[in-house]
Amino acid sequence: MSTSGKQRDKIHCSPRIFGHEAGGVVESVGEGVTELQPGDHVLPVFTGECKECLHCKSEESNLCDLLRIIPTGVLCSMTASPGFPRMESQFITLLVPSTFSEYTVAHVGSVVKINPAAPLDKVCVLSCGICTGYGATVNVAKPKKGSSVAIFGLGAVGLAAAEAKKFGVNEFVNPKDHNKPVQQVIAEMTNGGVDRSVECTGSIQAMISAFECVHDGWGVAVLVGVPNKDDAFKTHPMNLLNERTLKGTFYGNYKPRTDLPGVVEKYMNKELEDRGIRCIIRMEH
Amino acid sequence: MSTSGKQRDKIHCSPRIFGHEAGGVVESVGEGVTELQPGDHVLPVFTGECKECLHCKSEESNLCDLLRIIPTGVLCSMTASPGFPRMESQFITLLVPSTFSEYTVAHVGSVVKINPAAPLDKVCVLSCGICTGYGATVNVAKPKKGSSVAIFGLGAVGLAAAEAKKFGVNEFVNPKDHNKPVQQVIAEMTNGGVDRSVECTGSIQAMISAFECVHDGWGVAVLVGVPNKDDAFKTHPMNLLNERTLKGTFYGNYKPRTDLPGVVEKYMNKELEDRGIRCIIRMEH
Repeated sequence: MSTSGKQRDKIHCSPRIFGHEAGGVVESVGEGVTELQPGDHVLPVFTGECKECLHCKSEESNLCDLLRIIPTGVLCSMTASPGFPRMESQFITLLVPSTFSEYTVAHVGSVVKINPAAPLDKVCVLSCGICTGYGATVNVAKPKKGSSVAIFGLGAVGLAAAEAKKFGVNEFVNPKDHNKPVQQVIAEMTNGGVDRSVECTGSIQAMISAFECVHDGWGVAVLVGVPNKDDAFKTHPMNLLNERTLKGTFYGNYKPRTDLPGVVEKYMNKELEDRGIRCIIRMEH
Repeated sequence: MSTSGKQRDKIHCSPRIFGHEAGGVVESVGEGVTELQPGDHVLPVFTGECKECLHCKSEESNLCDLLRIIPTGVLCSMTASPGFPRMESQFITLLVPSTFSEYTVAHVGSVVKINPAAPLDKVCVLSCGICTGYGATVNVAKPKKGSSVAIFGLGAVGLAAAEAKKFGVNEFVNPKDHNKPVQQVIAEMTNGGVDRSVECTGSIQAMISAFECVHDGWGVAVLVGVPNKDDAFKTHPMNLLNERTLKGTFYGNYKPRTDLPGVVEKYMNKELEDRGIRCIIRMEH
């Protein structure tokens, strides 16, 4: 579970319902909703897709203006919804969907209709962790065949980032085993640096290392982990002028309603390794 | 003229011959040189291309391992060359070619043979400034048709970066006219940020502004200016996670021997505006 710095500040706010990865079945739809109907199998997502805003219309971005993750903690207006007890005040969700509950209420733009044959208890993790890591590699880092890729952090997201490499992880480096910066260790292991790196921890030091360990000339570092609000990314600008690229991504650059049904199909077609999926499920709620 | 931080430290070293943009005619070639012969029109370049190393063989990089710019100030071994007086000790060049001289000596990989019909007094500036700026835009920032591009610094390199936009510069922003950060001013002028930015000053603050002024979701910032050795690029990592891209480039990502003859042809075919070229010549030695 990833939370932004500001959300960490509000983590103790209450009343609050946690949970942001889930699969479910539509119980009812509100007036004007035409894309969904009761009985549809869906994945609620923490970042929506209105399909109308500048970001949704851009080929490059998946940061919906209307339904973007709200990093300050979200006040919901679902107090009268069937799944939640009526409360005197509004309550705070976690990353919008609040899926640690029997029912939830969501904007239609934050709900993805998927193949009803997909097992909800498995594909639920595509609604955040797997797509975030897998997409960071395939959609953003885009390693070529034979590229070396360093993945920082092997939690849910990092494992999915590694999964995208298909041939798996060949070497493991524990920074604590070395008395020099890990980016230097990796550069020495890889004749000057890796072709791509994907940072999946949220540690600012790991982010800096992930950037500085890529090869000059063509290296691309992709940041995925969510940092603390007080963090600063800091590097010598020559590390950039030597033709390294640094980019961040959010939810693996997937547009949820447009792209996620296709990722579910990949899982159904066994193009995503089940190993990763099972692994994550053990780690999540 | 751009110098790296470490070069700045050595700027007062002597004996030293300055100059790094020039056109010339080959006087003689050494043993084993087959690609050039006396009479060839050439541009000596500060960054070479051996065509053999990992970087030269990469489609993405132009940072030759053998003939890369040497940022610590270069000790030449040309003390017995015909153009330079014999000296007791070696002397220091500026960015390799030392073109403030009647003759110079260079590695064949640092010399680009060009169309002999090209006017050397004009195309000489393609050997650094123009290609650096022009290439930063067309090869690295790659704005799409209709993209907004912010260019920081309108010296030789910045003007060439603007030239690549074809339709010119529409608005000028003087940071001193505003009492808020210029990236904020630009974001307000452009509905959230520009699509691309190209930083051509070497000021670390301009680099940070150039990055922070690009639009989230798809913005790409390209750093070109050479910073001071003590500078640190610093930004909040959320600026990256919101899907901005930050990259640096060196000599506009042109491989000098492979690409520069084609840029000279562009000039000959009037695909490069003569305006930029003339402007630069007035500013150089």
